[in-house]
Amino acid sequence: MRCRVCRESAVINLPRHNIAFCKACFCNFVHTQVTRGIKAQQMFTKDDRILVAVSGGKDSLTLWEILLSLGYRADAVYVDLGIGDYSIRSRQKVQNFADKVTQTHDATLHIHTVREEAGVGVKELANLVHRPTCSACGTIKRYQFNHVALEQNYDVMATGHNLDDEAARLLGNVLHWQTEYLEKQTPVLPASIDGFAKKVKPLYRLTEREIAAYAVINRIDYIIEECPMAKGSKMLMYKDALNRLETESPGTKQSFYWKFLEQQAKKGTTTIVDRDRAQLHPCPTCGQPTSAEVCSYCKLLAKAKMATSDC
Amino acid sequence: MRCRVCRESAVINLPRHNIAFCKACFCNFVHTQVTRGIKAQQMFTKDDRILVAVSGGKDSLTLWEILLSLGYRADAVYVDLGIGDYSIRSRQKVQNFADKVTQTHDATLHIHTVREEAGVGVKELANLVHRPTCSACGTIKRYQFNHVALEQNYDVMATGHNLDDEAARLLGNVLHWQTEYLEKQTPVLPASIDGFAKKVKPLYRLTEREIAAYAVINRIDYIIEECPMAKGSKMLMYKDALNRLETESPGTKQSFYWKFLEQQAKKGTTTIVDRDRAQLHPCPTCGQPTSAEVCSYCKLLAKAKMATSDC
Repeated sequence: MRCRVCRESAVINLPRHNIAFCKACFCNFVHTQVTRGIKAQQMFTKDDRILVAVSGGKDSLTLWEILLSLGYRADAVYVDLGIGDYSIRSRQKVQNFADKVTQTHDATLHIHTVREEAGVGVKELANLVHRPTCSACGTIKRYQFNHVALEQNYDVMATGHNLDDEAARLLGNVLHWQTEYLEKQTPVLPASIDGFAKKVKPLYRLTEREIAAYAVINRIDYIIEECPMAKGSKMLMYKDALNRLETESPGTKQSFYWKFLEQQAKKGTTTIVDRDRAQLHPCPTCGQPTSAEVCSYCKLLAKAKMATSDC
Repeated sequence: MRCRVCRESAVINLPRHNIAFCKACFCNFVHTQVTRGIKAQQMFTKDDRILVAVSGGKDSLTLWEILLSLGYRADAVYVDLGIGDYSIRSRQKVQNFADKVTQTHDATLHIHTVREEAGVGVKELANLVHRPTCSACGTIKRYQFNHVALEQNYDVMATGHNLDDEAARLLGNVLHWQTEYLEKQTPVLPASIDGFAKKVKPLYRLTEREIAAYAVINRIDYIIEECPMAKGSKMLMYKDALNRLETESPGTKQSFYWKFLEQQAKKGTTTIVDRDRAQLHPCPTCGQPTSAEVCSYCKLLAKAKMATSDC
């Protein structure tokens, strides 16, 4: 197997593109895909300050590395959820990575520790308010990422969602015909005047396998295991179904998500998102945008506080 | 495990409904689902003459049996495709079944033999015109079913497509965002003034497993193996993916297809189908509707004839 570009010995084969690459040309391919996504979707420019949401996993650390390598101004934020040993190890991976990149790049890592603010980890917090852990986790992460982005005046918030994530989420939404979610599933959600930071997904053109290969080649030391709370999650089930279809018919995931994006572009999603956001107002407790009386994050913390004082 | 209705010992468990049934109550359940589908979708009444397209498989023979049991006026049509031993055995199953039902019901079986008209079976025919067998087979079956329905003045043509078939087809169309096909994927396609019979799928509310169980309970002797030409087909791949999701999350297939139908009903599919059919005119060779100069069936036969005379 030879590299399609330089004819050196290839290290990776990409069936969906029917191409093989050597290490260097593969990294170029990955960079090109990210650059193409950033430009095609008008995510940000070299002047913008980007906040990358990192978890310690391959996608988010790779995203931070790529943005810095490409010359973008990228800082990162990590939310320590307090999920026992898993959070200890993932925080360590993030810290080690930050220590390494800050030697060669001008970059900052922000850390928010759930236990410091709430007194307990996300699992216990979810139990206190009788909610599934993943749901409470989502509320906290969305809130904290947006909070740091706005407070520290970042122009845009970037997450490491890849093609597998987006295709799996799309499959889930399509299987249940959740059209209101479908309309928001684009790699860019614009900022809103009422307090939401712009959100982008620069890795949407790359598969999980491609990102893992890039991370290994570039010695990015990430936490390999999935979050223990995600075991048996529907998202993993949808990924598995798509992976089987992809094996039989390479390109299925890409064509599924990209053709969807083409259709959404024709429809003009921005208008829909703007309309949805029109009903928002600042939360009286924290000032972040909400459509409810109090925002879901403040409600979560207040409920947990009440439950603790009842004990 | 006890029957939900009569508390007798149950023979089948339906996870998607969270119900178990004894033999008799299960057959009632199947009949109710078919009746409900026929009425909800306004497929036909007891006055209409129905033509069931049978293949010798469980779905189409079961459909014929159910319609006759429910007191509908149902005849059947079988197309002998000339696929070696497979066609010989499936034709025998159809003939045996017809011999049995005509003892107790007023029903007729029509048979069209591809080899008699074209001189060769569908596989050789497809080879002669350099088309995939399944594609030539589709053209022939669609043509012959419609031809018999119109020539013999049937009010409606019924096929044995079940929930698994429809959900798999929907998944395939959604994965490729083939919106023009999506719009036609309903259990009823109305007749058109320019020569298309009304087409219905009365089993769309029942899964493959439920129909197989009904066939076994009612001693319907059907051909078990899939058509040898269908091996490795995308449709089987999509069914497999949906079956895995169904096992993890019972009701996935039903919710996927039924919610889709609800949305289509809101949109008013009939208009779209009518609009598509507006460009049709009679084929100058056979008189059946076509949007091309000559219909695809006549083109297929003419090409095959030319290829044979060239040899």
